[in-house]
Amino acid sequence: MKSSIEKTKLPRLAILGAGGLGAEMLVLLQKRLCANVVALADKSGFVFNGQGLNTLDCLEGLVREKKVSGILGAQASDNSIEELLDLNAQNIDAIFYALPNLPNEFIPNITKQIIHNSAFEGVIVDALKRTTAVKLLHSLDSELKNRKILYLTGCGATPGMLTAAASLAAQSFIEITNIEITFGVGIANWQAYRATIREDIAHLEGFSVEKVNNMSEAEIDAELEKRNGILELVDMEHADDIMLELAGICSADKVKVGGIVDTRSAKKPISTNVKITGITYQNKVSTHTFTLGDETTMAANVNGTVLGYLNAGLHLRQEYGVYGLKTAAEIMPRFQPVLVKTAKELLV
Amino acid sequence: MKSSIEKTKLPRLAILGAGGLGAEMLVLLQKRLCANVVALADKSGFVFNGQGLNTLDCLEGLVREKKVSGILGAQASDNSIEELLDLNAQNIDAIFYALPNLPNEFIPNITKQIIHNSAFEGVIVDALKRTTAVKLLHSLDSELKNRKILYLTGCGATPGMLTAAASLAAQSFIEITNIEITFGVGIANWQAYRATIREDIAHLEGFSVEKVNNMSEAEIDAELEKRNGILELVDMEHADDIMLELAGICSADKVKVGGIVDTRSAKKPISTNVKITGITYQNKVSTHTFTLGDETTMAANVNGTVLGYLNAGLHLRQEYGVYGLKTAAEIMPRFQPVLVKTAKELLV
Repeated sequence: MKSSIEKTKLPRLAILGAGGLGAEMLVLLQKRLCANVVALADKSGFVFNGQGLNTLDCLEGLVREKKVSGILGAQASDNSIEELLDLNAQNIDAIFYALPNLPNEFIPNITKQIIHNSAFEGVIVDALKRTTAVKLLHSLDSELKNRKILYLTGCGATPGMLTAAASLAAQSFIEITNIEITFGVGIANWQAYRATIREDIAHLEGFSVEKVNNMSEAEIDAELEKRNGILELVDMEHADDIMLELAGICSADKVKVGGIVDTRSAKKPISTNVKITGITYQNKVSTHTFTLGDETTMAANVNGTVLGYLNAGLHLRQEYGVYGLKTAAEIMPRFQPVLVKTAKELLV
Repeated sequence: MKSSIEKTKLPRLAILGAGGLGAEMLVLLQKRLCANVVALADKSGFVFNGQGLNTLDCLEGLVREKKVSGILGAQASDNSIEELLDLNAQNIDAIFYALPNLPNEFIPNITKQIIHNSAFEGVIVDALKRTTAVKLLHSLDSELKNRKILYLTGCGATPGMLTAAASLAAQSFIEITNIEITFGVGIANWQAYRATIREDIAHLEGFSVEKVNNMSEAEIDAELEKRNGILELVDMEHADDIMLELAGICSADKVKVGGIVDTRSAKKPISTNVKITGITYQNKVSTHTFTLGDETTMAANVNGTVLGYLNAGLHLRQEYGVYGLKTAAEIMPRFQPVLVKTAKELLV
């Protein structure tokens, strides 16, 4: 079936950010044909081709120069996202933010820029992690609705698949007493995920977002060395809490997120899981558990879920006119790609 | 918060069927205020009150006479569903089928009757189990759309919550190789679930739907006695398969459902779970697992999930005009109740 999908019928996707997740998304999309990547941008520049980018060219450029401006046909720019969208917004159906989470205002500010200064009308999906960022995005709900943009936030693994599992599992109960998310991440090539790891370090005791932002690469390396490459994270600021509160499952304070990240080994130090504890109408306390297979990587779980929500978002926006800000806890992701209808088809 | 919900703002629900599940739904709705039950019907008759039924009266009547016509204020009828809807369809926002699954045509035929002979426009939710019945319902999709009815099928535990978990978990993979659902059910008061157990026996080797339909109560009892009250069910005809196929997750033959039912003890003989195995884009085979807490009963998991889909269906229909047949694998259930808007509010 896969090979029979016409690339040009697939939604045209712009990937903003070309670090580990952005690059891996290009690889995933070769095997799960959900979108035709027409644009890639980072702070160095952007590349656009309305017929679809050449994935091999993109990966080759990223491997060689570690930035988008190194890709064949790319345009260097100090203002790449604005320039990309100025020129091509109407030829893009969906945007995936594979951008750093920090500072918290970063992604909300880019979204404001898209709302106010571009002609983009479509679906945006992110794999944001922090509560503060989701709160900022939530305040853009009515502006997004006015611009007919459907923005799906927190659509990675956690927040994302695990938050959605909690939302689903909650249905057995009349009250949720606590939701506990514990993730295990094993990273063999941590250099490719420096931004993610920097964010993780900000969750450690004695660290903060500000402090970590001011650390040099060498200081980050030294911190990892001191801990044998293992980061134990507890009570993290993770948007699962606000997403489950917005979905009406429980108050944010009942959601706890922690994890163990091993930056020296691809093997997960613990199986990623979410435990949903509640009280049934028959007054029993019980716990449902959703556990991810250890062989699935962070990239597979995050980007795979992003694609599921991308498909769902395109479907909901196209078929039913769903706009505004929604979270992974409110919507079922969709496995199969959505083919974008032309204006003519939409009128039928 | 719960007590502040005005009962008359809640969606008006008709429960068709008043066996174990129907009666337990009345109890659950006392604690999870999602709907105002205005009607109850079974083959003996129906009871309707546009302001909401008195739950205690209903339960008292059902306990005493084991049929709806025994409830204070009920009307005996040989054609109760048709009569109920003839008179009151426009005062009902949603219908829950707590009806027997057998024969397979039973629920599809009632649905046809509602489509063709009643003025009902709203949401229907079922907790159907059998593939054949879902296939029959699927053929009614366009008729349901024409009548602006949103019908959510397979919204119990399995099919239902576990099918949805499989749909969610699939996102980590590029291909699903198999989905295995194993349920454990412990029933202390199996006499209240005679219809369900009769259906389960039809799944045993050497039995069929037809054969079971022709068995007397005494023969059913003898069959249970012979097996010490334990039914081991393998490779069951369960609609999870067609639901996951319709949702584009995998072909129906990759979904297997089995379980162990202990009719002599409330303790589950095995934890109910679903295992989703697939191949990632990095060519790894892995399995995600979703396991239900043993303390949650079949009634809590089935009816709780039904309410989640009822809420979601009312929301999707009211806000976005979603109509037709959908399954639990396509939609995220919703924990919080949806307040029904008046025609005036809908126009704003």
